[in-house]
Amino acid sequence: MAAQGYFELNNRPSIIAWTSVVGPKEGQGPLAKYFDEVLSDDTMGLPSYEKTESAMMRKAARMALDKAGLAEEDISVMLGGDLLNQIIGSGYAAREMKIPFLGLYGACSTMAESLLIGSLILSGGYGQYALCMTSSHFSSAERQYRFPLEHGNQRPPSGQWTVTGSGATVLTTNPGLKGPVIESVTLGAISDKGIKDVNNMGAAMAPAAAETITNHLIGSGMTPADYDHIITGDLGRVGSDILLDLLAVNGVDIQDRHFDCGCEIYGDMKGIKAGGSGCGCSAVVLNGYFIPKLARGELTRILFVATGALMSPTSSQQGESIPGIAHAVSIAKEGMQ
Amino acid sequence: MAAQGYFELNNRPSIIAWTSVVGPKEGQGPLAKYFDEVLSDDTMGLPSYEKTESAMMRKAARMALDKAGLAEEDISVMLGGDLLNQIIGSGYAAREMKIPFLGLYGACSTMAESLLIGSLILSGGYGQYALCMTSSHFSSAERQYRFPLEHGNQRPPSGQWTVTGSGATVLTTNPGLKGPVIESVTLGAISDKGIKDVNNMGAAMAPAAAETITNHLIGSGMTPADYDHIITGDLGRVGSDILLDLLAVNGVDIQDRHFDCGCEIYGDMKGIKAGGSGCGCSAVVLNGYFIPKLARGELTRILFVATGALMSPTSSQQGESIPGIAHAVSIAKEGMQ
Repeated sequence: MAAQGYFELNNRPSIIAWTSVVGPKEGQGPLAKYFDEVLSDDTMGLPSYEKTESAMMRKAARMALDKAGLAEEDISVMLGGDLLNQIIGSGYAAREMKIPFLGLYGACSTMAESLLIGSLILSGGYGQYALCMTSSHFSSAERQYRFPLEHGNQRPPSGQWTVTGSGATVLTTNPGLKGPVIESVTLGAISDKGIKDVNNMGAAMAPAAAETITNHLIGSGMTPADYDHIITGDLGRVGSDILLDLLAVNGVDIQDRHFDCGCEIYGDMKGIKAGGSGCGCSAVVLNGYFIPKLARGELTRILFVATGALMSPTSSQQGESIPGIAHAVSIAKEGMQ
Repeated sequence: MAAQGYFELNNRPSIIAWTSVVGPKEGQGPLAKYFDEVLSDDTMGLPSYEKTESAMMRKAARMALDKAGLAEEDISVMLGGDLLNQIIGSGYAAREMKIPFLGLYGACSTMAESLLIGSLILSGGYGQYALCMTSSHFSSAERQYRFPLEHGNQRPPSGQWTVTGSGATVLTTNPGLKGPVIESVTLGAISDKGIKDVNNMGAAMAPAAAETITNHLIGSGMTPADYDHIITGDLGRVGSDILLDLLAVNGVDIQDRHFDCGCEIYGDMKGIKAGGSGCGCSAVVLNGYFIPKLARGELTRILFVATGALMSPTSSQQGESIPGIAHAVSIAKEGMQ
């Protein structure tokens, strides 16, 4: 059945490498052991948090190429973005690599956006390898979006904590290489229900997630039971509750298989409030926790739905509400081509 | 011959609608008569320049759908970005339209980036109609990147003037619809030769343009003589001279057919210095001036090379140089499928 934004891939890309680099705080959470690298210093010895974020992304990208056994010139396209103004995290990471670069801005939906554009391009027969990536850094985000760190501001219960982390994924349509496969994608449209509270982004993004998940199920003809997990990016505890309620209205029940990366990455750590957020949140959980499980055959199929809030400090100051967006990527274990 | 980033399209999308909306100043330049609409008021009666930019983009997008005779639900994907932090011009424009949205950030290369991603997706068999768009606004850019307008700052001879304008293009692979065709694209990698002067962005972007044009000619096996015009986005007078010199080193001579949108949009207007800039600059010249000429068969083939400077005020304050990028799109008149 036709559903807006849904595309089944004719030539399904395989995921042949995946990396996750996180900061010290994320290295103390319940998922710590799944990440490839935990930084001991959240500055990496660099003089600014923006330079650190870019270096972290470069590290994740280079590790992904190494794992895949590929050189920069093998990669047809690098797709990336981040939360920093003018996506300087990604831009300066890409500067160090001679790979054609497509800059994206999908806020915290960027990992899904990069995977879906990369998959559509490769699947169409254009290029053989794509490097998809994103990052966020607590300290660069905090000072750009909220207050100087020195301000020591408090946050309300619905507030979220930006994850310091970067994830990178290498896709290929080279038929000789195997790995988990991207089966289908659903591109999301913007949904804005009028939320203006920048400390409640989960509520702003939940309606977009509900729409995209519903469209994906209609388009693919699948039911939640076909997925081991339906994974949202960073709705956090407030947004996750809203998502389940909104889906119930659509007659969709995912409660027993819903996993929100923002709810899980810090567990019950003190001061985190409603959970983690940031592009890096879903990127490191996907690349650190889920893709390896698919690669080992411990999971059969997941739906990865990263959500983004497309406001800026300027739009918020001008009284605008927060537009939410969600893109979905369906990933199955090797051999499901 | 293989060249990095070059892709010939198997299923060539046709351009079936194109629109350009510009501000009052652009409406006094030598290309004024080619634009679909010249705004009489650069605020459009709205309370902020950011809201104006978004409204201008929405206007260009809606006009494009009207010209194409399509409804929002006919469009498979909308691809857009702009210069504002978190691309709020595009995000809030997309919010008003129920179309799957892919947010991009390529600075002033965005019109080419949106066309090439849209072309690759459609050509691969995914969706039938894509809406590609971008915008810039002098006053929203000036206060975000430089100084408050009230400051009345002067600019050096190499400085450029951000164009107020938005361009939108509708692509389709529906075989029943005809128009100029996108034949091939070349994705650019970042090039950074160490320029740090934000008042000399032409110099920062010229090396990327030279690389992408050279790669495109190698990949396509074409020579400059195969193109009526090789069009750069907004190198301005300083960057254009550098581009011609750099290409000469590669043995490529485009002098007699080079057209820089930034050099032409204001002509010799007082105070403009080295030319126009901004995502909107090449977007309105492409959609206002060149695509109609291709549609009427007055031109046979153009190479559209939009260039971007991927720095931010923060990266400049931190002493970073300016990474340049350029993406190329080869467009031929109808019937060249």
